[in-house]
Amino acid sequence: MSAPRRRLDAIAHHLTNVTVDPATDTVLAMEEERQKTAFDVRELTYFLDGGADKTKLKERLMLSIERDPEMRNDDWYDLTKEQVRERTMRKFRNLAHYVTVEPEQTSFLRLSLISIVDPGFWTRFGVHYGLFFNALRAGSTGNQISYWLQRGAASLNGMIGCFAMTELGHGSNVQALETTATFDEQTDEFVIHTPSLTATKWWIGGAAHTATHCVCFAQLIINGKRHGVKTFVVPLRNAEDYSLKPGVTIGDLGKKMGRDGIDNGWIQFSHVRIPRLYMLMKHTKVSREGVVTDPPLAQLSYGALITGRTAMVLDSSASSKRMTTIAIRYACVRRQFAATPGQIETKLIDYAMHQRRLMPLLAETYAMQFAGDKLYKMYNSCMEMLADAEGADSEATDLALENLKELHGTSAGLKAFCTWASLEAIDKCRQSCGGHGYSAYNGFGTAFADAAVHVTWEGDNTILALQSGRSLIGSYKDAKSGKKLATGVAYLGKCEELKSAKAGQRDINDFAVIREGWQACSALAVEKAALAFDKFVKAGKSQDEAYEATSQLRFLASKVHTRGFLVTGFLDTLEQAPEKIRKVLLPLGLLYAMWSTEENSGLFLQAGYYNSAQVDDIRDRTDALCLEVRNQCCGLVDAFNLSDFFINAPIGCFDGSIYPTYFDRVKKSNPSTSAPPYFQQVIKPLLTQSMEEDEEIEEEDEDED
Amino acid sequence: MSAPRRRLDAIAHHLTNVTVDPATDTVLAMEEERQKTAFDVRELTYFLDGGADKTKLKERLMLSIERDPEMRNDDWYDLTKEQVRERTMRKFRNLAHYVTVEPEQTSFLRLSLISIVDPGFWTRFGVHYGLFFNALRAGSTGNQISYWLQRGAASLNGMIGCFAMTELGHGSNVQALETTATFDEQTDEFVIHTPSLTATKWWIGGAAHTATHCVCFAQLIINGKRHGVKTFVVPLRNAEDYSLKPGVTIGDLGKKMGRDGIDNGWIQFSHVRIPRLYMLMKHTKVSREGVVTDPPLAQLSYGALITGRTAMVLDSSASSKRMTTIAIRYACVRRQFAATPGQIETKLIDYAMHQRRLMPLLAETYAMQFAGDKLYKMYNSCMEMLADAEGADSEATDLALENLKELHGTSAGLKAFCTWASLEAIDKCRQSCGGHGYSAYNGFGTAFADAAVHVTWEGDNTILALQSGRSLIGSYKDAKSGKKLATGVAYLGKCEELKSAKAGQRDINDFAVIREGWQACSALAVEKAALAFDKFVKAGKSQDEAYEATSQLRFLASKVHTRGFLVTGFLDTLEQAPEKIRKVLLPLGLLYAMWSTEENSGLFLQAGYYNSAQVDDIRDRTDALCLEVRNQCCGLVDAFNLSDFFINAPIGCFDGSIYPTYFDRVKKSNPSTSAPPYFQQVIKPLLTQSMEEDEEIEEEDEDED
Repeated sequence: MSAPRRRLDAIAHHLTNVTVDPATDTVLAMEEERQKTAFDVRELTYFLDGGADKTKLKERLMLSIERDPEMRNDDWYDLTKEQVRERTMRKFRNLAHYVTVEPEQTSFLRLSLISIVDPGFWTRFGVHYGLFFNALRAGSTGNQISYWLQRGAASLNGMIGCFAMTELGHGSNVQALETTATFDEQTDEFVIHTPSLTATKWWIGGAAHTATHCVCFAQLIINGKRHGVKTFVVPLRNAEDYSLKPGVTIGDLGKKMGRDGIDNGWIQFSHVRIPRLYMLMKHTKVSREGVVTDPPLAQLSYGALITGRTAMVLDSSASSKRMTTIAIRYACVRRQFAATPGQIETKLIDYAMHQRRLMPLLAETYAMQFAGDKLYKMYNSCMEMLADAEGADSEATDLALENLKELHGTSAGLKAFCTWASLEAIDKCRQSCGGHGYSAYNGFGTAFADAAVHVTWEGDNTILALQSGRSLIGSYKDAKSGKKLATGVAYLGKCEELKSAKAGQRDINDFAVIREGWQACSALAVEKAALAFDKFVKAGKSQDEAYEATSQLRFLASKVHTRGFLVTGFLDTLEQAPEKIRKVLLPLGLLYAMWSTEENSGLFLQAGYYNSAQVDDIRDRTDALCLEVRNQCCGLVDAFNLSDFFINAPIGCFDGSIYPTYFDRVKKSNPSTSAPPYFQQVIKPLLTQSMEEDEEIEEEDEDED
Repeated sequence: MSAPRRRLDAIAHHLTNVTVDPATDTVLAMEEERQKTAFDVRELTYFLDGGADKTKLKERLMLSIERDPEMRNDDWYDLTKEQVRERTMRKFRNLAHYVTVEPEQTSFLRLSLISIVDPGFWTRFGVHYGLFFNALRAGSTGNQISYWLQRGAASLNGMIGCFAMTELGHGSNVQALETTATFDEQTDEFVIHTPSLTATKWWIGGAAHTATHCVCFAQLIINGKRHGVKTFVVPLRNAEDYSLKPGVTIGDLGKKMGRDGIDNGWIQFSHVRIPRLYMLMKHTKVSREGVVTDPPLAQLSYGALITGRTAMVLDSSASSKRMTTIAIRYACVRRQFAATPGQIETKLIDYAMHQRRLMPLLAETYAMQFAGDKLYKMYNSCMEMLADAEGADSEATDLALENLKELHGTSAGLKAFCTWASLEAIDKCRQSCGGHGYSAYNGFGTAFADAAVHVTWEGDNTILALQSGRSLIGSYKDAKSGKKLATGVAYLGKCEELKSAKAGQRDINDFAVIREGWQACSALAVEKAALAFDKFVKAGKSQDEAYEATSQLRFLASKVHTRGFLVTGFLDTLEQAPEKIRKVLLPLGLLYAMWSTEENSGLFLQAGYYNSAQVDDIRDRTDALCLEVRNQCCGLVDAFNLSDFFINAPIGCFDGSIYPTYFDRVKKSNPSTSAPPYFQQVIKPLLTQSMEEDEEIEEEDEDED
C-alpha cells in the first residue's frame, strides 16, 4: 500500500458514511498523473535550485521550519489581525536566533522559505534587517556604525528599528517629504518636526508595535536654508516598557488589504531633539558649526535598487510556484461532466480550455525564475566589470556604466511586469478551482491580498514601467548617435534592419525566428516612442513634457521589451541547460513564447513580422503545446518541491486526497456548535415575530351621544 | 464658507499641529474640479436612474439606510468573521420588516443599495428570498405552496430556508449530484441520504447558522431506478433552539476569501425521512404507489437564468461606480511631483498615464450599465413576444424562441465578461491609489474579495463564455441554412460581406464605421470557430468532441461578440438619449469604443478592417479622449450619486478632504495603546536576550594525575 494511500485511509477512518469509489478516487488519479511523468523530477528540482546541495540545504531548512511550533500554519487563515501580529513577532524572535548563528545566505534562504506561506513576516523582519539596518550601514560613518552596533542594532539587544520614509502626502516623490530636521547650533542638536498633517509618517512597518528607533527621512534645515532630504536616527520608545519618547506620537494604521502581520503605523514628531551625530553622515556632513559638506559625487545608488527588484522577480516566481501547484494538482484529480453519458467524468486538466488557463501560467512561472536568475547574474557581472574598470581606461568604465544603465531599465520593467503577472496568476489559479478556490483554507484569498502590495511598493509599477520606457528611448538615441549599447538593448542598434524583418517561410518554432520577432516588435515600439518624443520636443515641449506626452508609448515599449526579455531569457536557459533538462523544458519554453506572441498579436501584425495566417498558426501551436505540457504538468509542479506545509491548501495536497484533506481541515478549523451565538438575540425574535396585524384604532362614532 | 470647507475645519479642529496650505488644499482642489464640470450632473443622474422619481426614491431609501443604527458601516473593515455574520443577520431582520410593508420593487431597490457596501448581506438575504422561496414557488403544486406559506416560508414565521444544491464533488454538473432521495412506499416517505464524502452538500449559504429548512437537490430513486435530480424540502433544525433534526449533520465552512457575512455550511443526511409530498411536484410527480409522471415538455427555464445574469451585469456596473468614484476623486486631489521644480505638484489626474488607467474604466462602468439596461429590455420584449405568440402561428413563436436563444447566449457572455471586467476594475482602481489603496479603510481589499466570487458562481465564467461561443456557432449555422436570426446576431447572416469590409478612408469616429468594425471582427471570429468545428466533425469527431476541440476559438468568438455588444450598446444609448445627455456622454462612448478596439487590435488587423496606421490613430484618439473625459470626470462620477456612507472610503470622500478624513478614520478605528498586548511575552525577551557566549566546557586534562 502506497504512503498516500495509507494516509487517505487513515483520514477516511475518521469519517462516517464515506465510501471511496475507485473509479473516482482522487488518490489514484494523482498516481496516474505521476506515472505519466516522463522525466526525473529530482533532476529538474536540482536544476531549478542551482544544484543538489542547494536543494538539500533547502530541505533541511524546510524540515526545521515545519517542526517548529511557532511556525505552525494549519490555523493561519482563521487568525485575526491581532493574532497574526503576535504570531509574526514570535517568528521574528525565532528567526533572530538563526540570523546570529547561521551563515547569511542560509538565513536568507530560511527567510525566503518562511515567506512563501507568510509574506507579511518577510516584511516585518525585513523592516529591521533589510531597511533599518542597511540604511544604518550604508549611511553611517565608522564611529556612527560602531555606536549603533554597540547599542544593539544588529543583535536586537535593546533596539529594533523601522524605516520612516513615506508620509501621508508623499510616497514616490521622496524629495518633497515635509518632515523637517532643523539644526540648533546652540545645543548641537537637530529638531525633528512634523509640520502638517500630510507630513505625518505613514505606512511605517514596525512603528505601531515593534520599533524602538527609526531612520527618519527629513528636510535638513540650517539657518533657514534647506539642504534636501537626509536621514536621521530618532529614538521612538523606551525599551523597558515601550512608552513613547517625549514629542513622539505614534498610531496604528490598523487593517490592510493583506499582510496583517506587519504593524504599520503613523508617526508625528513634535520638536523632538536628537544629538547632531544621530544624522547619518557618511555622505553629507554637518559640522559642529552647522557647515554642510556634500559628498564630492552623487553616489551610484543603483545597486540596492537592482538587487531589490531581482528579489521581487524571483519572489513573483515563488508565489506562482505555490499557486500553480495548487491549481494544477486540483485539476489533475477533480472531475466534472462526462464526455459520454454514464462514463466516468473527465478530469478538469483534460479540458482544452483548462489547459489554456493553467499551462501558460506554469510556463510563466518558469520564465520568471529564469529571468530573475539572469538578472542576478547580469548584476554580478556588471559589478565585477565596474570593480575591474576602476582606475582603468574610460572605455571599460563607460561600458560598465552603460550595462548598469541597461540593468536599471530592465530591472524596473521586470519588477513591474513580473509582479503584475504573478498577482494576476494568483487569481487566475483561484478561478480555475471554481468554488473551492474561494474557501480561505485553499489559500488563494490570502495570497492575493498579501501579494497585492507588490505592485505599488518598492517603486510603483506604473512609474517603473515608464522609467524603463524612458531608458529605452535613451538607449535608442545612444544607438543613433553611434554609441555602443549594452547587450540587452543591442538590438536597438539595428532598428532599420529589424523594421523589414519577417518570419516569412521559416519555422515559427525556430529560436532565431522567435528572438528576431521580439526584437523587431520591441524595436518598433521603442522607435515609435522615440519619434513621438522628438516630435514633441521639436514642437516646443520641454524634455519632461515630451516624456509625459509619450507616456502610453513608453509604457508599451517597456511592456514588449520586458516580455521579450522573459521569452528570450527562457530560450537562453534552454540553450545552456543540460540535454536532459532541455528536453523537459522545451515545450514549456515554446509555449511561453507562442502564448506571449498571441497575447501581443496586434504588435506583431503591426510590425509585419507575422502575417494573419501565421498568427492563427501560433494560436493553434499554443493549443498543441498546452496539451503537450499538460501531460508532464504534474511532474513540472512536483519539481518545485514544496511540501504540503508550504502549499498550505488542502485541494493542492501532494497525494491527491483533496476531499478528505479539505473536509478534515474545514472541520478542525470550525468545531461544530449548536445555535450561533446570536441566536437568542437576533434569529429567535425574527422567527417568532408576530406580524403586526392591521388592527387600526377604531374611529370614534361621531353620531354617538 | 462652503459646506465641505466647514466640515474640513470641523475635523481639523480636532488635530494638533495641522496647518492647511491653501496651495495644496485638497478641498479647494476638488472644488476646482467641480467647477470644470460643464453639464448638469443632476440631469445625468436622472438619466442613469431612469427618471427623477426613481432618483428621489433611491435617495429616500439611502437616507433611511444611513440613519439606521443596524446599518452602520464606519467599523465595517475591522469586524471579525463572527461580528460580520451577526451584523449581517441584524440587517436581515431589519430588511425582513421592509419586505413585508414595501412594494416589491422598492424592497429590491433597498436591497441593491445595501449591497453596494455589503454584498455578503445581499447573498444571505437572497438565499432565503431569492433561492429558497423562489424554488418553492417555481416547483410547488398549489397545495404545496399553500402549505409552505402557512408554515411561514414568506413571512419567516418559524422558518428560514437555504438552497442545498452544490456538493463537495459537484458544482457545475448538477445532473451528477450524488445525494439520493429513495422512495419508501411502505411509509410513503422519501429517504434523503448522503452516500459518500463527495456527496456532502457544500457551500450552502445559510446552512451553518440560519436555516431551518432546505430545498435539497437529490437523485430520485424508486424501486432501484434513478429518475434524475429533483428537489425536496428537508427540515434541518428545530426552530425553538436550533438543534439539528435527527440524521442531519451540519458544519460551518468557516473563512472564505470574502463575503464573511454568509454562513456557508456543509450538510450530510443520514437516511433522513420526509413525507412524500415534501418533494416539489409541480413538474415531475410521484404517486402514492411510486409511479413517476414526468412533465409533458421540458420547461423553458431560461427566464430565471437571464434575469439573474442581467442583475449581475448591472451589479458589475454598480461596483465599478463605487470604485471609479474613489479612485477618480483621489486622483483629482492627490498631488505628486512638480512639473517644474519649486512649483506646486501635479494632480495625479493630470498625468496622461493616470488618465489612461482610469478614464477607460469610467467609460466601461457606463457601458456595463447600458448593456444591463438593454438586456433587461430585450428580455421583457422577448417575454412579451412569447406571450403574444402563444397559440398564434408558428413563425412568431419561432422568432420569439430564436430571440430567447440569442438572449441566452448574449446574457451568458455578458455575465462572464462584465463580472471579469468589474473585478479587474476594482484592483486597477486600487493600484491607482498607490499605498493608500492598500489600507483596509479605503475599501478596495474588501470589495475585491467580495466580488471575486462573482466570476465562479451563477455559472462559472469560463463555462458561460464557452456556452455563448457555442450559441454563436449555432446562429452562424442557422444563418447558413437560411434561417432568420435574432437582431443581436443578425450580422452573422452577412459574413461574406463583412469579410471584405474595411474602414478605408472613413472617419474612425463614425458610429457606422465602429459598428461595422465590431461586426466584421465578430463575424470572422465566429466563422473561424464554426469552420474549425465543421472540420473536426468531418474528421470523425462527435459534436461534443468537436466543440471541445474548438474551445479557444469559441472563447474568442464570445469575447469579441460580447465586447461588440457593449460598444454598440453604448452607441445605441447615445443615439436614443436626449441631446443634452448625448453631448455629455459622447466622449465617454467614443473612448469606450476606441479603447476596446485598441485592446483587441490583433483581431481588427487580422480582419483587415483597420490597417496598422489606423491602429496607431486609434491609440492616439484614445489618448485624446482620455484627456477630454478627464476634464469632466469629477461630474461623471458625481452623477453616480453615491453618498460618502455608500462610498465608505475616506480617500474617495465627496468634499476632497481626504487627508483629515482618512486620518480621522484610522485614529478612530485604532485607539492608541502603549505597548502591544504581546510585549511582555514576546518582544521584551527578544530585546533583553543575552546572546549565549561560546563558553565551552573545558576538556579534561588527560595528563592530569
